[in-house]
Amino acid sequence: MQDILVVGIAGGSGSGKTTLTRRLMDRFGDDIAVVHHDNYYRAHDDLTYEERTHLNYDCPDSFETELMAEHLRLLKMGRSIHCPVYDYTVHNRSSETVLIEPRPIILVEGIMIFAEPLLVEQMDIKIFVDTDADIRLCRRVVRDVCERARTVESVTRQWLSTVKPMHEMYVEPSKKNADIIVPEGGENRVAISMIVGCIERHLNAVRA
Amino acid sequence: MQDILVVGIAGGSGSGKTTLTRRLMDRFGDDIAVVHHDNYYRAHDDLTYEERTHLNYDCPDSFETELMAEHLRLLKMGRSIHCPVYDYTVHNRSSETVLIEPRPIILVEGIMIFAEPLLVEQMDIKIFVDTDADIRLCRRVVRDVCERARTVESVTRQWLSTVKPMHEMYVEPSKKNADIIVPEGGENRVAISMIVGCIERHLNAVRA
Repeated sequence: MQDILVVGIAGGSGSGKTTLTRRLMDRFGDDIAVVHHDNYYRAHDDLTYEERTHLNYDCPDSFETELMAEHLRLLKMGRSIHCPVYDYTVHNRSSETVLIEPRPIILVEGIMIFAEPLLVEQMDIKIFVDTDADIRLCRRVVRDVCERARTVESVTRQWLSTVKPMHEMYVEPSKKNADIIVPEGGENRVAISMIVGCIERHLNAVRA
Repeated sequence: MQDILVVGIAGGSGSGKTTLTRRLMDRFGDDIAVVHHDNYYRAHDDLTYEERTHLNYDCPDSFETELMAEHLRLLKMGRSIHCPVYDYTVHNRSSETVLIEPRPIILVEGIMIFAEPLLVEQMDIKIFVDTDADIRLCRRVVRDVCERARTVESVTRQWLSTVKPMHEMYVEPSKKNADIIVPEGGENRVAISMIVGCIERHLNAVRA
């Protein structure tokens, strides 16, 4: 058995990926490193702020997936990486990076990760968190309006113009790559217990 | 922890439920008892053979689900049951029964079991095997034409007239009751390993 297990967690915006990811981080602590696809949004130093606000951030091209794939390869070889950091306030990559050290469990999290063969081929377990579109929209509206001070009109316009069509074009078909599909991921006690058990067996085997 | 774990395996015709069920039977042997919903097709001694061939066998009413629910309750209490046997050659319940003894794991298998609250409420783990309709139809045609000597015309007519509409009315919505959804169930190595691990933990806990 290889020493490092790569677990992918994908699912649409508002599906509950983050909750599931947090549950696993809480459970496994220092045994887990998390790599978010969102941190690999491309740098656009060549564009003005105004131009950057008009980009489509909900398609695979928005991400520097080659770099993330290279980083996953390094982590699997037991090497540390300098993960880029994305600064949402300026819609651009920050000049900072975050050091991520290799751990027995690497969680890879992101909406589009199962649509990217370079990432999929490196994952041992692929979990898709599946939640109805209307429930996901409710969560997105609450998050963006209440926590990020955006208007309902701007949130629903983005949903209809890019989030929904990109979901249907890339995310929904990528579900085919999943090993298991978890309805309502973050609060699904039985599924979380199965996933935790599977990761525990891996840790026990590595340490035996 | 209760001593007996009830695992439900549902999914459309040809989805791979039976393959997954067999994998778990092979793995757990005498620790597992399997109860098939199909064996609870209603007796129709009041109808002629000709009348029985015209019944819709793809809807929840075809099954004596109350009896199956009662049998699950008995098994969970550690009691044996006399499971009915369905005789497909005469489209009626056979006069025989099969003795099923309680085991630490009770597998409940059937297309419509997640559409039945009386069954769902008794299950600890609900697994839905999800396979595209066209793949399921391919398997059904092969099975019924090659193994059961039916004509392609009769198989596709039944598919379009009852299997498909009943699937969309009862089976697909019942997926909402699943704890995990397994794409291509029988051959999905990662998902099977997760399910096996979960059952093993239960057995170890019961025996500790």
